[in-house]
Amino acid sequence: MSYNAPLKDMLFVVNELANLAAINQLPGCEDATPDTVEAVLEESAKFCGGVVAPLNHAGDKEPSFWHDGQVTTTKGFKEAFRGFAEAGWQGVQHPAEFGGQGLPKLVATPCVEMLHGANLAFALVALLTDGAIEALLTAGTDEQKARFIEPLISGKWTGTMNLTEPQAGSDLAAVRTRAVPQGDGTFKIFGTKIFITYGEHDMAENIIHLVLARTPDAPPGVKGISLFIVPKFLVNEDGSLGERNDAHCVSIEHKLGIKASPTAVLQFGDNGGAIGTLVGEENRGLEYMFIMMNAARFGVGMQGVGLAEHAYQQAVAFAKDRVQSRAVEGSSGPVAIINHPDVRRMLMSMRSQTEAARALAYVGAAYSDLAHSHPDEATRKANLAIYEYLVPVIKGWSTEMSENVARDGVQVHGGMGFIEETGAAQHYRDAKILTIYEGTTAIQANDLVGRKTVRDGGAVAKSIIAQVRATEAALAEKQGADFAAIREQLAAGSAALEQVVDFVVAATRADPRAVFAGSVLYLKLAGIVLGGWQMARAALVAQQKLDAGEGDAAFYRAKIGTARFFADHVLSGAAGLRHAIVDGSAGVLALEVEQF
Amino acid sequence: MSYNAPLKDMLFVVNELANLAAINQLPGCEDATPDTVEAVLEESAKFCGGVVAPLNHAGDKEPSFWHDGQVTTTKGFKEAFRGFAEAGWQGVQHPAEFGGQGLPKLVATPCVEMLHGANLAFALVALLTDGAIEALLTAGTDEQKARFIEPLISGKWTGTMNLTEPQAGSDLAAVRTRAVPQGDGTFKIFGTKIFITYGEHDMAENIIHLVLARTPDAPPGVKGISLFIVPKFLVNEDGSLGERNDAHCVSIEHKLGIKASPTAVLQFGDNGGAIGTLVGEENRGLEYMFIMMNAARFGVGMQGVGLAEHAYQQAVAFAKDRVQSRAVEGSSGPVAIINHPDVRRMLMSMRSQTEAARALAYVGAAYSDLAHSHPDEATRKANLAIYEYLVPVIKGWSTEMSENVARDGVQVHGGMGFIEETGAAQHYRDAKILTIYEGTTAIQANDLVGRKTVRDGGAVAKSIIAQVRATEAALAEKQGADFAAIREQLAAGSAALEQVVDFVVAATRADPRAVFAGSVLYLKLAGIVLGGWQMARAALVAQQKLDAGEGDAAFYRAKIGTARFFADHVLSGAAGLRHAIVDGSAGVLALEVEQF
Repeated sequence: MSYNAPLKDMLFVVNELANLAAINQLPGCEDATPDTVEAVLEESAKFCGGVVAPLNHAGDKEPSFWHDGQVTTTKGFKEAFRGFAEAGWQGVQHPAEFGGQGLPKLVATPCVEMLHGANLAFALVALLTDGAIEALLTAGTDEQKARFIEPLISGKWTGTMNLTEPQAGSDLAAVRTRAVPQGDGTFKIFGTKIFITYGEHDMAENIIHLVLARTPDAPPGVKGISLFIVPKFLVNEDGSLGERNDAHCVSIEHKLGIKASPTAVLQFGDNGGAIGTLVGEENRGLEYMFIMMNAARFGVGMQGVGLAEHAYQQAVAFAKDRVQSRAVEGSSGPVAIINHPDVRRMLMSMRSQTEAARALAYVGAAYSDLAHSHPDEATRKANLAIYEYLVPVIKGWSTEMSENVARDGVQVHGGMGFIEETGAAQHYRDAKILTIYEGTTAIQANDLVGRKTVRDGGAVAKSIIAQVRATEAALAEKQGADFAAIREQLAAGSAALEQVVDFVVAATRADPRAVFAGSVLYLKLAGIVLGGWQMARAALVAQQKLDAGEGDAAFYRAKIGTARFFADHVLSGAAGLRHAIVDGSAGVLALEVEQF
Repeated sequence: MSYNAPLKDMLFVVNELANLAAINQLPGCEDATPDTVEAVLEESAKFCGGVVAPLNHAGDKEPSFWHDGQVTTTKGFKEAFRGFAEAGWQGVQHPAEFGGQGLPKLVATPCVEMLHGANLAFALVALLTDGAIEALLTAGTDEQKARFIEPLISGKWTGTMNLTEPQAGSDLAAVRTRAVPQGDGTFKIFGTKIFITYGEHDMAENIIHLVLARTPDAPPGVKGISLFIVPKFLVNEDGSLGERNDAHCVSIEHKLGIKASPTAVLQFGDNGGAIGTLVGEENRGLEYMFIMMNAARFGVGMQGVGLAEHAYQQAVAFAKDRVQSRAVEGSSGPVAIINHPDVRRMLMSMRSQTEAARALAYVGAAYSDLAHSHPDEATRKANLAIYEYLVPVIKGWSTEMSENVARDGVQVHGGMGFIEETGAAQHYRDAKILTIYEGTTAIQANDLVGRKTVRDGGAVAKSIIAQVRATEAALAEKQGADFAAIREQLAAGSAALEQVVDFVVAATRADPRAVFAGSVLYLKLAGIVLGGWQMARAALVAQQKLDAGEGDAAFYRAKIGTARFFADHVLSGAAGLRHAIVDGSAGVLALEVEQF
């Protein structure tokens, strides 16, 4: 059940597909030379594989537990988080002025993938803390930044996001938590928040809760929500800890997976009011929360990739080791099951989808770096639009993919997969949260349809499809059955995607139910086409290397073979999806509620 | 978390699609009149919903546990099994001469579905007992039948299947358990068997283990395996219980799901030898075990349908109850989430696939009844061939489908689905065993390719496709967009299936790896096309009823709408599957083992 970060694959994507050399040229990214990045990733891999991964199964068997308001995390988590913090891993992508390393998102992203791949439940504390840092960097006052960001980056404290309430799941318009001004610049917070990841734990000195609440005169709905800092321990002006705040963990959930990660019910203000301070302006809380959420959504996408990689590695190891039944083409005795074609098919499916989702996410990270650091404003804007289009796809598709990969991982193990001690089942259970939290796949799909496709009339989507077409042209110049098959399926996929974008743009206003009946399928189609595009790009680079006689030939041949698999087994579903989206709403909406 | 057997849907399939009236005409099936069958199903539904279903979640929370060789099952299981046995439910399809009800498989099948739908972990004890009864009926001596069958049918005792050993999962050639003749007609059995469902429990007076083992001079491989009866307590000639046999449960597994069902490691012969008697002839054990296994495989298919139905009902209830967010087309306030198009899509996907798998299985049961009871030998033979073609599809596809349905069931619940107390997650965990035990989906697919398609040159497959084409012709005569869409997708599906059958027949001998690289996909394609065929037949019947103004119009309109959904969202994937099967092996086999 060990996990080894797939460094060679990661560096291939970072350098060849996401073009680190270009990112390295951007102002502020000068430190991110290919050599430095390789060294950073190697160190991260060592820490994640050596320290964090060994705690993954232990966290599942002996989860965090609650007693009398306190949460005790799995043995070893506290020490591992110390090690994580002291080595500076929380700060990889955060500004140097607050103690971070200030590296591009393209460099932080593989580090994030490794951490989640090693141990999803552990890594969540870092993901939430990243989100809190982002929100404070964007909307905090200078004083708030000075007081809170450095301890979060150093890992002395951790952060949380407090959105959900019992009566309101994904629907933030229904938030009821109250914030009452005290006249001294502080507020008293009253309310209950649920599903708060690492809302209480013993791994850091303090926990900085970022809480959505309503001030007394706030307008109803999402326009009346403000964001507050509510620390577990109040923080004095000199940064030292003061009194215990009136924010208490009254229970944690008994969950299907990520059991080591405490999911808290937090009660604010039952003993007079929890003291909070406003972040940014009143009634703009949702906007700030979206900053955290967008960073977190990308991060959850990486959880999907990391978990899929871990499940894949475990399945490969089992399939190479387990000897059973003769080969279908005949053999003198039983063979390792990796030789059975259906096991091979499942492993290729796991591998190719993981690689595709990784490549799409890293390329997305590079767009984000260009959007933030390119000197030219128009270029920044164009790259931001592409990045924002990709975020729901990266979150939604990578996580849906990871469920299928984790399922196949159990299946490769046969009966042993159903026995908990094998560890394969943990991935199957852990994966199920990824398509739900930080916005379900349907919520990602709403974002993709509404804000990312309809708002600009499909312009960004079309600009990406034009890039896919350029890759198809490059494929057409290559010889051989592999490139012909990849080109054929990619072309069918991009045609399907374009038709769907046209349908979405044309129909959303007039017939929103018909479009949203297929919105998740549109997200999946975008995922497989854009993932397939990256696989095709990888195959082109690999062929170039082979032609030039550079590097590890077996590695590059595997890239072409994996792209071929993805084309014939994953991209080949594009036309069916297109049909279900464009012609499938009648079936979705055929029944009245009473007929169910 | 209640479960109500979908009686109206079940009776629709039994009467309209599986043609109970015709089965009722068969010799020996005279009792199975439509009225009697409706009464039987109503009683079964009452018992399953009222007694068995309420124990489902309890069994998950407080599973069976092992102590010192004894297994204590979940509180209430013992009493429920008494009730089950006393009402005669174990004997529905077994011969009246041994105390059964002697009803056709078409009548037993909905009862089996209900029992599994209510509580999979509980129902397994009945499924395994059914298998033991079948094997003894086929291969037992008159003396063995007289001694063992009646107590199994009456539920006084239960049965088990002992195949798997630690070194051999699905590979029975590797069985090592020894059977040493004692000269008095008995054998002493020595060995370890694992994964033995209900291998030890406290719900019955005795457990009849059917055990695969090798006699001293047996040839190697599967041709040297014999089948033995090894009771937990020896059985005296008068049927009373004798000494405790040397067959002991040394542990039970800690599993992902079906936790109430004890999965035993059984140790035979550690204290001198477990006493067993040979069933049938020496070295023909595998053949007899396949009798149990084929019955059990069909039963596992029904587990898939039953679990899917339960997950669907739970998701519908939640989606009608949970109010959150405004409607996409606008609404004055938040609406029940069943109104959100993506929730509706998931519910329709769950519903349509469950209905399709149910219909295919019940129709399969009717073929089995014709194969057993029709007076004409040629008709029996033809129906047996169709039934045998369908068994791996019913087992493989219904269970793969049930995983997806259970997944969607969690997804409909959002964050609440990840919390164990909601109960949705239990289905997700329980479902995962179904594609593994009684032969993984890959093993079903091997059977479908080898014994069921290649052996007769695709003749049976083609005969079924010809029936599908007849349905397409009937669809062409109907008016309206629904029937046009159903016909179009069914025709595309049957064309894809035919091309795949041709490919499998042509290529298996020359290039087995290329065919088996797509064998599971062939099974899935057969499932969606034949399931889609049944949905189309259901729509035709429904339209006929509507035209005639008979019955519940909303019910029949829902049948047409559900068939339309299945066509546009499930059948529409047929062409992609065809491509992956016929053109996809290069990708599956692209890498050498060392490249993984």
